[in-house]
Amino acid sequence: MPVLSDRHLLGLEGVPQKDIQLILDTAFTFREILDRPVPKVPTLQGQTVLNFFYESSTRTRMSFELAEKRLSADSINFSKSGSSASKGETLRDTIRTIEAMKIDTVVIRHSAPGSAKLMTGFIDSNIINAGDGAHEHPTQALLDMMTLQEHLNLKSLKGLKVAILGDIKHSRVARSNIHGLKTMGAEVMICGPSTLLPYEAEALGVHISTDINEALEFADVLNILRIQLERQKGGLFPSLREYRKFFGITMKRLNGYKKKFTIMHPGPLNRGVEIDADVADSEHSVILNQVLNGVAVRMAVLVLLTQTHNKGKNRSDG
Amino acid sequence: MPVLSDRHLLGLEGVPQKDIQLILDTAFTFREILDRPVPKVPTLQGQTVLNFFYESSTRTRMSFELAEKRLSADSINFSKSGSSASKGETLRDTIRTIEAMKIDTVVIRHSAPGSAKLMTGFIDSNIINAGDGAHEHPTQALLDMMTLQEHLNLKSLKGLKVAILGDIKHSRVARSNIHGLKTMGAEVMICGPSTLLPYEAEALGVHISTDINEALEFADVLNILRIQLERQKGGLFPSLREYRKFFGITMKRLNGYKKKFTIMHPGPLNRGVEIDADVADSEHSVILNQVLNGVAVRMAVLVLLTQTHNKGKNRSDG
Amino acid sequence: MPVLSDRHLLGLEGVPQKDIQLILDTAFTFREILDRPVPKVPTLQGQTVLNFFYESSTRTRMSFELAEKRLSADSINFSKSGSSASKGETLRDTIRTIEAMKIDTVVIRHSAPGSAKLMTGFIDSNIINAGDGAHEHPTQALLDMMTLQEHLNLKSLKGLKVAILGDIKHSRVARSNIHGLKTMGAEVMICGPSTLLPYEAEALGVHISTDINEALEFADVLNILRIQLERQKGGLFPSLREYRKFFGITMKRLNGYKKKFTIMHPGPLNRGVEIDADVADSEHSVILNQVLNGVAVRMAVLVLLTQTHNKGKNRSDG
Repeated sequence: MPVLSDRHLLGLEGVPQKDIQLILDTAFTFREILDRPVPKVPTLQGQTVLNFFYESSTRTRMSFELAEKRLSADSINFSKSGSSASKGETLRDTIRTIEAMKIDTVVIRHSAPGSAKLMTGFIDSNIINAGDGAHEHPTQALLDMMTLQEHLNLKSLKGLKVAILGDIKHSRVARSNIHGLKTMGAEVMICGPSTLLPYEAEALGVHISTDINEALEFADVLNILRIQLERQKGGLFPSLREYRKFFGITMKRLNGYKKKFTIMHPGPLNRGVEIDADVADSEHSVILNQVLNGVAVRMAVLVLLTQTHNKGKNRSDG
Repeated sequence: MPVLSDRHLLGLEGVPQKDIQLILDTAFTFREILDRPVPKVPTLQGQTVLNFFYESSTRTRMSFELAEKRLSADSINFSKSGSSASKGETLRDTIRTIEAMKIDTVVIRHSAPGSAKLMTGFIDSNIINAGDGAHEHPTQALLDMMTLQEHLNLKSLKGLKVAILGDIKHSRVARSNIHGLKTMGAEVMICGPSTLLPYEAEALGVHISTDINEALEFADVLNILRIQLERQKGGLFPSLREYRKFFGITMKRLNGYKKKFTIMHPGPLNRGVEIDADVADSEHSVILNQVLNGVAVRMAVLVLLTQTHNKGKNRSDG
Repeated sequence: MPVLSDRHLLGLEGVPQKDIQLILDTAFTFREILDRPVPKVPTLQGQTVLNFFYESSTRTRMSFELAEKRLSADSINFSKSGSSASKGETLRDTIRTIEAMKIDTVVIRHSAPGSAKLMTGFIDSNIINAGDGAHEHPTQALLDMMTLQEHLNLKSLKGLKVAILGDIKHSRVARSNIHGLKTMGAEVMICGPSTLLPYEAEALGVHISTDINEALEFADVLNILRIQLERQKGGLFPSLREYRKFFGITMKRLNGYKKKFTIMHPGPLNRGVEIDADVADSEHSVILNQVLNGVAVRMAVLVLLTQTHNKGKNRSDG
């Protein structure tokens, strides 16, 4: 039974290539199960997974919950509203309480960078980071990579040129994609307004540009990030109209190139802002494949972390 | 395996008599299962049902969730609060995302009339309308008809006289009942203050009255709708006290007639406004039967739509 | 098959010793199941449990939900937000609606003392009180007693000296503990500011003190209640700082005694107010054992009430 180097998935920074490849390979086998009439397996029967969402979320929470149910695990949902968090309990005490209830795996989303890692320090459950502030969102990057491998029919992402567009600075999706893609041998360019680019980006070995034409020249794949409308208030870009003018992906802009771009977006979409409707719905868009692969990737991660945990326990027992 | 004409249930308008009868017959068989010590069957094992509630609801959401669990389906709940809907995503994109996750059936409640139908245009899941604005609420009307057939020990609703009382204009329950009852051969009168009666009602072939005595004269069955207190602000009726005086169903009012009315109400009740407590709790009240039959009707609809869907797929495959 | 005297658990007042002992003994057998790799049994398969939480809660709701899932029951969650309660429906009508859906067991938390008992009057489901205002919270007291028996390796709680500290007056946890501990033969002292002590306490046969040193002198076990910060506004105690000075459990205070106190707290903790961090995390703290035992106790109660209900039905049938 193959196992990973770690029984938590906190981010893709530092995760070895063979681990990422194992997750992707496993996800492809679960993807086949999802195409069956009864897409359910008993793999995690009797296991309990807590979906611990301190930030609101639709698609990530639902995707994890579906993955858990298709694996026959028991899901418990926790959301901040209606919880003791409002009674002033520390995150640490909340978490330790959860652990005392013998939860096998905790899927955590929290606005604080490092919150997922923090949890591993004082509880024994497997931890999956479902987004910690602007830090990482590893399952999103994994499903992006799986979707590229599937759509482009690739054995490896080596040499593939991916441009990540938009608000890179505040994006956990960008950060996880950069780490994962670099590890798998892809070339990455980030592109957006200079106020939305991270200062430390060069150290990550990515190309940086503030000119969308440079990005289009460079890339086979466009991963178009959501413009978070609340950033505008902070003065980080002038207006949605101006953003669209300089960085919005329109058919007209794409048609200026002979190549066929693969179009990705983690959702939810602002149609007419960072991406036009006809681009989002075009035949080279893999946005909905990303969603389906998300369930498969999360099944793979849930199972592999459990196997890794069990192997660790057997070793320390024997 | 019997199937319906359509694999969605969007409303009762235009649904053929044989379909309604098939749903009611199937619901009666599920009703027997609900009386067993272990009221659970494996019929929908491995199927996933999304309860997609954009409007808050207790009884309808719980009734569907129970129906799903008793059929061994996996339920996923989505409510507007804590979702991406607040992030400005279009309903269409939310729905397509859901479909990409391979959801078999979506139960939708939404304030926009036509929202359930809209969904069928771009996703492949079976759609059940659990209330779309003032348009339709078909499972409520089906459970009402089932309850009448059961309580009055009828083989057919033909010739039965049903008066629907109250705010007909804003009521999806009224609209679905009118369509269903007419199709099954019942006679329908609607009765309420003129400001709460729909202009188009005559075209539906129902009797219309603004005089409660006319309705009581006419009817065997009273389906008493909930007065939505927020309508009062809109000036559509003067006061709760005055509403009760002219339209409230009291024992005194009923005792003026020799016949025994069957008393229905979709809930939640405003006791002392549209219905008095002793009427609601009387032996001719079937209000709680409606609730139990609701679970059976929803089980029937979930199973029949799935069978209809599968038959469609086999046909197009073969 | 052993059964209880009642098929509801509304409080510990008046519950006979043999019932409490049966629950604790059964909880210990479930505790063993929780330590297995697959901590799930089919005992309540096909049974439906409604978690009906009118007040928000994390740990109690999650603990019950886990207990239900580990027993293979189907759980339905109801919380006040997003429900018909906001539509002005009476509690009685909400409850009767629930019953009509054939729910086997209802776990209720509500701010009104007596609400759990009220429910038994008009519905047939087994009722478990998960906290009714300042009245009782019996499963909390049961898990406290189980934890003491386990930690101190006792066959009986007879003669054990337990001090309950803090806001006794508004505490359902205190009230249930007093009833349970007295029935099992323990000696109880309550201690806190005089404004937070109940007038009727002496009648319960407990020692009363407003001096923390007296309590420490007396007790083997300290059950430290949470200071509800909102009480301060009501003027019931001057400030958190002053509370801590006179009643806060610090290491320094404990070290003044030769004996080793067992430290309990129902959570959530206000570290640095009623309990210091090093006390909460010390080796004599059983706070996290309380959490784990909570799942086992709730499994025991769910199963025993069901058996008691079934036995009652068979008797009336035969």
